[in-house]
Amino acid sequence: MVYFQLEICESGATGNVVYYLPMKKTLPVKDIGFAKLDFARRARTGFGETVFGPGKTPEQMVGIFRAFRERRLPVLATRCTHEQAAALEAADVPVRYDPVARAITSDWGRNKKLKGRVAVLTGGTADIPVAEECAGTIEFFGGRAARYFDVGVAGLHRLLNVIDKVRKADVVVAVAGMEGALPSVVSGLVSAPVVAVPTSVGYGAGAGGVAAALAMLNSCAEGVSVVNIDNGFGAAVVACRMLRRLKA
Amino acid sequence: MVYFQLEICESGATGNVVYYLPMKKTLPVKDIGFAKLDFARRARTGFGETVFGPGKTPEQMVGIFRAFRERRLPVLATRCTHEQAAALEAADVPVRYDPVARAITSDWGRNKKLKGRVAVLTGGTADIPVAEECAGTIEFFGGRAARYFDVGVAGLHRLLNVIDKVRKADVVVAVAGMEGALPSVVSGLVSAPVVAVPTSVGYGAGAGGVAAALAMLNSCAEGVSVVNIDNGFGAAVVACRMLRRLKA
Amino acid sequence: MVYFQLEICESGATGNVVYYLPMKKTLPVKDIGFAKLDFARRARTGFGETVFGPGKTPEQMVGIFRAFRERRLPVLATRCTHEQAAALEAADVPVRYDPVARAITSDWGRNKKLKGRVAVLTGGTADIPVAEECAGTIEFFGGRAARYFDVGVAGLHRLLNVIDKVRKADVVVAVAGMEGALPSVVSGLVSAPVVAVPTSVGYGAGAGGVAAALAMLNSCAEGVSVVNIDNGFGAAVVACRMLRRLKA
Amino acid sequence: MVYFQLEICESGATGNVVYYLPMKKTLPVKDIGFAKLDFARRARTGFGETVFGPGKTPEQMVGIFRAFRERRLPVLATRCTHEQAAALEAADVPVRYDPVARAITSDWGRNKKLKGRVAVLTGGTADIPVAEECAGTIEFFGGRAARYFDVGVAGLHRLLNVIDKVRKADVVVAVAGMEGALPSVVSGLVSAPVVAVPTSVGYGAGAGGVAAALAMLNSCAEGVSVVNIDNGFGAAVVACRMLRRLKA
Amino acid sequence: MVYFQLEICESGATGNVVYYLPMKKTLPVKDIGFAKLDFARRARTGFGETVFGPGKTPEQMVGIFRAFRERRLPVLATRCTHEQAAALEAADVPVRYDPVARAITSDWGRNKKLKGRVAVLTGGTADIPVAEECAGTIEFFGGRAARYFDVGVAGLHRLLNVIDKVRKADVVVAVAGMEGALPSVVSGLVSAPVVAVPTSVGYGAGAGGVAAALAMLNSCAEGVSVVNIDNGFGAAVVACRMLRRLKA
Amino acid sequence: MVYFQLEICESGATGNVVYYLPMKKTLPVKDIGFAKLDFARRARTGFGETVFGPGKTPEQMVGIFRAFRERRLPVLATRCTHEQAAALEAADVPVRYDPVARAITSDWGRNKKLKGRVAVLTGGTADIPVAEECAGTIEFFGGRAARYFDVGVAGLHRLLNVIDKVRKADVVVAVAGMEGALPSVVSGLVSAPVVAVPTSVGYGAGAGGVAAALAMLNSCAEGVSVVNIDNGFGAAVVACRMLRRLKA
Amino acid sequence: MVYFQLEICESGATGNVVYYLPMKKTLPVKDIGFAKLDFARRARTGFGETVFGPGKTPEQMVGIFRAFRERRLPVLATRCTHEQAAALEAADVPVRYDPVARAITSDWGRNKKLKGRVAVLTGGTADIPVAEECAGTIEFFGGRAARYFDVGVAGLHRLLNVIDKVRKADVVVAVAGMEGALPSVVSGLVSAPVVAVPTSVGYGAGAGGVAAALAMLNSCAEGVSVVNIDNGFGAAVVACRMLRRLKA
Amino acid sequence: MVYFQLEICESGATGNVVYYLPMKKTLPVKDIGFAKLDFARRARTGFGETVFGPGKTPEQMVGIFRAFRERRLPVLATRCTHEQAAALEAADVPVRYDPVARAITSDWGRNKKLKGRVAVLTGGTADIPVAEECAGTIEFFGGRAARYFDVGVAGLHRLLNVIDKVRKADVVVAVAGMEGALPSVVSGLVSAPVVAVPTSVGYGAGAGGVAAALAMLNSCAEGVSVVNIDNGFGAAVVACRMLRRLKA
Repeated sequence: MVYFQLEICESGATGNVVYYLPMKKTLPVKDIGFAKLDFARRARTGFGETVFGPGKTPEQMVGIFRAFRERRLPVLATRCTHEQAAALEAADVPVRYDPVARAITSDWGRNKKLKGRVAVLTGGTADIPVAEECAGTIEFFGGRAARYFDVGVAGLHRLLNVIDKVRKADVVVAVAGMEGALPSVVSGLVSAPVVAVPTSVGYGAGAGGVAAALAMLNSCAEGVSVVNIDNGFGAAVVACRMLRRLKA
Repeated sequence: MVYFQLEICESGATGNVVYYLPMKKTLPVKDIGFAKLDFARRARTGFGETVFGPGKTPEQMVGIFRAFRERRLPVLATRCTHEQAAALEAADVPVRYDPVARAITSDWGRNKKLKGRVAVLTGGTADIPVAEECAGTIEFFGGRAARYFDVGVAGLHRLLNVIDKVRKADVVVAVAGMEGALPSVVSGLVSAPVVAVPTSVGYGAGAGGVAAALAMLNSCAEGVSVVNIDNGFGAAVVACRMLRRLKA
Repeated sequence: MVYFQLEICESGATGNVVYYLPMKKTLPVKDIGFAKLDFARRARTGFGETVFGPGKTPEQMVGIFRAFRERRLPVLATRCTHEQAAALEAADVPVRYDPVARAITSDWGRNKKLKGRVAVLTGGTADIPVAEECAGTIEFFGGRAARYFDVGVAGLHRLLNVIDKVRKADVVVAVAGMEGALPSVVSGLVSAPVVAVPTSVGYGAGAGGVAAALAMLNSCAEGVSVVNIDNGFGAAVVACRMLRRLKA
Repeated sequence: MVYFQLEICESGATGNVVYYLPMKKTLPVKDIGFAKLDFARRARTGFGETVFGPGKTPEQMVGIFRAFRERRLPVLATRCTHEQAAALEAADVPVRYDPVARAITSDWGRNKKLKGRVAVLTGGTADIPVAEECAGTIEFFGGRAARYFDVGVAGLHRLLNVIDKVRKADVVVAVAGMEGALPSVVSGLVSAPVVAVPTSVGYGAGAGGVAAALAMLNSCAEGVSVVNIDNGFGAAVVACRMLRRLKA
Repeated sequence: MVYFQLEICESGATGNVVYYLPMKKTLPVKDIGFAKLDFARRARTGFGETVFGPGKTPEQMVGIFRAFRERRLPVLATRCTHEQAAALEAADVPVRYDPVARAITSDWGRNKKLKGRVAVLTGGTADIPVAEECAGTIEFFGGRAARYFDVGVAGLHRLLNVIDKVRKADVVVAVAGMEGALPSVVSGLVSAPVVAVPTSVGYGAGAGGVAAALAMLNSCAEGVSVVNIDNGFGAAVVACRMLRRLKA
Repeated sequence: MVYFQLEICESGATGNVVYYLPMKKTLPVKDIGFAKLDFARRARTGFGETVFGPGKTPEQMVGIFRAFRERRLPVLATRCTHEQAAALEAADVPVRYDPVARAITSDWGRNKKLKGRVAVLTGGTADIPVAEECAGTIEFFGGRAARYFDVGVAGLHRLLNVIDKVRKADVVVAVAGMEGALPSVVSGLVSAPVVAVPTSVGYGAGAGGVAAALAMLNSCAEGVSVVNIDNGFGAAVVACRMLRRLKA
Repeated sequence: MVYFQLEICESGATGNVVYYLPMKKTLPVKDIGFAKLDFARRARTGFGETVFGPGKTPEQMVGIFRAFRERRLPVLATRCTHEQAAALEAADVPVRYDPVARAITSDWGRNKKLKGRVAVLTGGTADIPVAEECAGTIEFFGGRAARYFDVGVAGLHRLLNVIDKVRKADVVVAVAGMEGALPSVVSGLVSAPVVAVPTSVGYGAGAGGVAAALAMLNSCAEGVSVVNIDNGFGAAVVACRMLRRLKA
Repeated sequence: MVYFQLEICESGATGNVVYYLPMKKTLPVKDIGFAKLDFARRARTGFGETVFGPGKTPEQMVGIFRAFRERRLPVLATRCTHEQAAALEAADVPVRYDPVARAITSDWGRNKKLKGRVAVLTGGTADIPVAEECAGTIEFFGGRAARYFDVGVAGLHRLLNVIDKVRKADVVVAVAGMEGALPSVVSGLVSAPVVAVPTSVGYGAGAGGVAAALAMLNSCAEGVSVVNIDNGFGAAVVACRMLRRLKA
């Protein structure tokens, strides 16, 4: 066991304050040059490692997936290109690629099953990629996701058609761009927490998701919290952290 | 008749372009020092004169109302204080003051009746002053306004309770603060044009009505147009301009 | 007839509140995988279906137009590319493509004729695509649109040359970028409602239409309401909703 | 039972779509002039009614609390002034006032106990009023809140001193102003969902909580979702909606 | 004569670069504790000293004016309160106070007369204080200012009534709030340079003059340049610098 | 001569107000389909026509230049591409193309010579294209421009080296990106009006010229007015309008 | 010695990672109810405790100063009111109050002397309170501060008059509002690091210090770093951290 | 020696103020057409010349490096492309290119060694290019840089693993995107000044580095100052200016 000093204080009238941070040397983080792979992540947080795809070369992606495969640890890469997926296939790394969600999932390893269920809603069809990133991540982490897409508030009957099913979910993820009104309307109709995901769908004033994000933060409906624009992955983690508590 | 030259062009290869703007000398605008009163306004635009209250002393307000009274022309003052209303009462100028709408209306004169009806909705109770400014202005201009207040989308049953009546209106004015979702939901349920009024109700990110205004401009529902934040008066004028066309 | 429960309340001291939302099973929405086509839209709202072009593959566009053609329902697609139009032509779907407005219109079906007329103005020539999207949409919905382009306020004689014709319209759509002053000037010269469309024409401070949109929301002229930046389609729907009321 | 029509469609080739919304007449909403009191709220959502204090006169506050007292329904008013609290005391309405949280709670009625526990953290002492609004609301709704205040990241030992207790909570609410870094650091150290509350504490660039809100939305740590600036109440509702699921 | 070194360079392959800044010791700047009075300003720039009123105590204002009076140098203080003016009167310092322009002018000293004339226009009556600050400053600097107030573009006839006089000016200052369209319209009708002054008149989206300032920077009309919001003084200096060149 | 009515008022107690706008039919504007060419512009404003290049096809550019050539009217096109210039050359239209300024100037026609001189300064070398657009436009309009480039404030000796020459100019145009400090420093050293041009040079916070534009509007130095970001052309027109007054 | 567990990991294929954070129980932080006083701060960081004045009652301020006095530890409170200072005097706590800097300093205790010197510059007189907060804090921490106030770039001779003295400082703090150009100009003339402090002095576009802060972040001059708007205290700490290294 | 006049004042009652700025003629700045090369820079500021790569053609880059090589002066070019580096290689100019830092360094010349050491930290791997630009620049200027990458606050153990080494540095540069929390946490753990570099890493609300920059300016931790987004070079200059003082 190795101790090292976090903060050394001078001796003074008020006595010493010394923090030591001991640490086992076997820190299971592998440095493969372009990234530090955290193999202890699932042990530490309960969820397997996930990789943010943008900026990584196809070769790097292959290297990362292989490192996890050696340890039989599941891994998910988000926002991936066809090129990255093709490189893995060419390298005989067994993965699945979802071109809508732009996600690559390892065919090995398993996250523990989570109890409960998440309802993932979108306002329009253009929000579906973000919602699929969310739903796919939930499933990767062992949860169940029920999809209700294209149920935006401008045609209220679409939402009312499915609301009784949505009401059975333990967490609701509401994905919407433009004016971002879906979470407000949904939250008034359900008793579960609503995680709102603004999307960059739309144009003009408040484009890029700003209008939707502001609307969601200002929701007059109780029970809504918000993640970053287009952050379907983030909403999934919040939802799964909730689900994991269901057995506690 | 007096002509004066709008634009004098030099002689050139391409010939002269001369605009003349003739004008009768009897321009019925009275300059009373602190304001130019436009007595021809009703004749010109179909609507009587309106006065923006802020920044005017009680004495100036009395002077303005008296000038219109002499000509038996109706006048409406918006965003007025109790002090301004009290000064008019003390000066025996017959007016009515609505403290919620903060509007002073002359007891004399009449605008022609308008056909049709405007439905004025609010999301919450805090939006009522803006909505009352709107409804009162519509009534001043000879229109009819039906009020449906506190029907915000977070408790959808409130809106659904009144939607069949709202659907009978020729124009809908939807007043809402915070996330400003009301116009989107309403517009999907009616066939009339929807004039959206963002209000400064709310706080935090996008406060002062910015979140609501952006949401309304980005409405995914068709048929919505937007006026400035808290501009109940402006929405009323837009609505009345529409109503006036109903007999055409 | 199928009833389903909108909201179930527990029994309590205050009695039950139960909402039921009955619905015929024959909901005429066709799910073709990548979109839900709403064939009842014209019945419900009075206007035929419209499709937002961006993000749709040429194949999807062909699929959508064919589905509507089977039912003889008119359809309009906005913001379309040459590729999308060419795909329809190659598939022998009878449509017309307007490259300036970037709109594809079905050659079949008809929307009912609307009474009255809309004047569509632009400040400059760069605003014309947005104005053509607006005018074309009005015509698709059965309305009449009179075009007055390049009449911006920096050369006032251009506007004054046409103002007497503009004054005859039942609705005025004023399309302008840069400082967005056209709606303010026009609204002071006409008695019809003015729908202002800011465009993303311009550069520098407040680029992307922000300066124009803010100016239009702050118009000192009465009777102006605003749609989102470049939203010629949205202005058309607002205008047509107004026109439709003319026969009421 | 009363049915009313949500949307009437014209007869067409595609058949009718008719929605009916039946509703019991005994809607337990009491209109007391300045507000609609929703006595069915606890039945519907599981949580008792809450009132937003700002803008309500002391007399109105007394009227609201009395109406709930008659039905023995608990009620919480947030962001209240000393004047509002004093008026209730003077009117012999049995309530408790927390001047830090600025909350008034009825002494009667009870919300059902919730399982689990919420850890409420603040970065500094200036964030405490927002945190107390959150913790008090959680307790009003029947939940348990553990407070860990003044544990901001600039003096990391303060957070590390309490982190083992925080890790036992089912939900963590992290309240912070200025650079809003607390949720990111906390979320990396716990496995529960983290609800981030930006506060308006701070000054200069990004003042009013904007810097904190943006930082929290951009958190590089997974598991964080965000409510509006200073919205301690909103975070409490999100947390309690999570807690309520624990027994499911 | 005293020389001091601006920048010392080390000796190197490329030779020395040495700047010396010699300076007469009789720098006519008087340090009166709370301010450095620049008595040489008129000599240096052609215009007498001006003082920014806000933040100065009445006693400090008296001290400043007395120091200039001793030297018979004219002085102008802008944005002054009644209290500051009253203190000067009580101290028998001969000044004039304009409560609309909020300016205090010394009764002694004279700036040289400037050739030419400036037309100062406002859109509305609420813009008059800024315009009067501008016109009064021009007159203090020896220029002539012609006022054309309340000629905003929403009632175009008001501007057309005076445009032939405005066209005779050598510089036009156009002061406007809200949508800030006046400079664009004016600049298309005159051949002189137009200095645009956005004002903080207005409310809602782009309040505080932001909408007007952006509109003016984006003016589609040539010949417009812009000063800061409410900066009537700044526009006056720009105009007078232009006038001063007329004799060159 | 043709009169048409600007505004018809109803008869009323206050008399009629009738405006007539007479207009010669020979309005020398040629509509060539994609643009309205204003051949009277030089006659009206004193400056020849200028064309904004972006968005125009090479064929349209040839058409525009030919139309002006027929009338021997000079024309300047700004922000042009190499393709546009090549098309003119291929069509044997005698023009000159400046690739730095991105300007095309007709080889025929002449604007009258202007008196005086403009000093055009830049902070860095990256600002030169904007400055050349400005200087070239001044020269097209018959003015003289002296260029002082790369004299930014971070190396003050560069500005001091040329300041005595700059002081002789009748107008100073200061072009700068990043923190936009050049106009403030220059304006304190000269007595001529300073037209500030923010450029989009820079990156990060306030990128795209926003930081520079705000700094220039907030200049503590008197005598500075601002045009839009990168608007070298606009600054040239302002400067030339000033120069033209020099003979008055 | 007490150990507590920072993070417990599950046993897994990759082995355990266990962090322990041992901590002496004698943590010299005193919780006095409304604040946690950190008596070890000087020992830990080298600088004595400082207190942020706003929001603290006079009684709390007395309590805080007394607690430090008991231990003979120096303490500085910033942004204090006269009331807070008077309460300390009334309670016979020996302090000094600087009303310009709004700072209260204990008369007891001493921070160690720092080597070197800081030059503190301001652009105008309105920036002096922020500069005095900075200079006073430097002196409290044992450093030396040389003040050069009112040397803004609009009158360059003021800066050049003192630049040779400024060049002798080890750190330069440049405090400026409005366009915030001072740090850029200074940094080009000195070789020491320049800490830029934007102030909220100014009005209009970019008010509240935003224009100055953006300008400083975009400085084209090397060697400039920026603290928050009006944060004279923060600049002082940065400067003193630099000074402390001088003996290393 | 050549004198020239900085400012000529008129003779007046207050005497003359005359500044002269003498200057040796041998100003070692070489104008090579597209740039002014400042060969005296190292002599003047202590650091060799650096060149901002973007916008320079490969040919210009070769020209610049050759000019410095003739004088044996070291030169660094930042943000360079592979094309620029290849052109130098092809021209046999001996340089090194770092593709991560995107920097080209001359193989000749030397800056003097600096005492002390800078610790350069990044929050994530995506921040490394900015950090390498910083570290490389420090090394070019003769300083020593220790790199600690991917130590962001979401996995606090990564930072704690290296904090004892970081504490030995004389200056800390903390590079982070997204929520930008790293400088706050680091600054509370070290006693050296912390230069914070926000990066444009991230997306959604506050994208482009705005969220990180605001967070860093609002840091609740003392001792942090901020440079522009992605400005690794700027942070290096600030750090080296500090290091240079260490021998003073």
